[in-house]
Amino acid sequence: MRRIVFVLVAIAAVPGLIAFNVGGIAHAAQEAAPVFVKKIPPGYRDWKVVSVAHEAGDLNDIRAVLGNDIAIKAYREGKLPFPEGAIVGRIAWSYVASEENNKTFGREQSFVAGSPTDAYLQFMVKDSKKYAATGGWGYSSFGKDSQPTDEAAMKSCFPCHQAVKDRDFIFTRYAP
Amino acid sequence: MRRIVFVLVAIAAVPGLIAFNVGGIAHAAQEAAPVFVKKIPPGYRDWKVVSVAHEAGDLNDIRAVLGNDIAIKAYREGKLPFPEGAIVGRIAWSYVASEENNKTFGREQSFVAGSPTDAYLQFMVKDSKKYAATGGWGYSSFGKDSQPTDEAAMKSCFPCHQAVKDRDFIFTRYAP
Repeated sequence: MRRIVFVLVAIAAVPGLIAFNVGGIAHAAQEAAPVFVKKIPPGYRDWKVVSVAHEAGDLNDIRAVLGNDIAIKAYREGKLPFPEGAIVGRIAWSYVASEENNKTFGREQSFVAGSPTDAYLQFMVKDSKKYAATGGWGYSSFGKDSQPTDEAAMKSCFPCHQAVKDRDFIFTRYAP
Repeated sequence: MRRIVFVLVAIAAVPGLIAFNVGGIAHAAQEAAPVFVKKIPPGYRDWKVVSVAHEAGDLNDIRAVLGNDIAIKAYREGKLPFPEGAIVGRIAWSYVASEENNKTFGREQSFVAGSPTDAYLQFMVKDSKKYAATGGWGYSSFGKDSQPTDEAAMKSCFPCHQAVKDRDFIFTRYAP
């Protein structure tokens, strides 16, 4: 009876956990399950700029990558890995040709930020213990309605970011 | 003799002033001559994001438009004209395809900020009296060496920004 109660507690603590370790090493199973961030970090829109980018193709967005003070300090000092509490975020807006600007320039050259995209906000939150299963970063994504993206879609975050493991899983470089 | 001294003072105070009002309304001439900003506003790299953009063509840059606290507050409140002391700036980096990102995405889609461009930094500083000749905004531009652009090139700033006089001469809209 004691054993059954323990398993139920583990499931409640880690939503989505597959309890394949019934009666076994439940602690290890807990670490291996990714934990996603479900809350937008407060004040992110006031954060400092890391860099900017344009993703063409299906995404077709223009984006600002921002960092909280801990992240910006680490970026500027070239410090890796990022310290606990660092958060790197990005805001993505639709990539829109600016008729107004083009008219003024006299040519088709200007692309600006339009409305929020379907993957409006994304954040990586550094907490080595809590997010041990995903390289010490908790991943999050929010739509234009500020609601979290469903967990199934979030499972591709970490595998993709492993391409830059040597930069502590962060793609974006600091722009001077 | 008093009259000649006065004209010389006016010339010294406003470089580039054509002293067509010798012996006449020197004050009016002073107001009509644009005054350009020659100093990079301290701390601009810490300012909050107004928006982002990509200028294709000859410029071929990707840019962040930032504002000091006065400018950001006015933007967020939708307040026009911008109050005294507002500064809107933009940083322009070369527009570079990211091989690293493309490799991870599996397609050619990612463009990031490279090195500073020849027109690296530009600012508009609101001071209705000092910059009365150019709509209340002082214009500035700095190259990748952080040196001010020569004044001849600066003369195109205000005529171009007059296209958006109804938005207090500021092209960039606040991105949500």
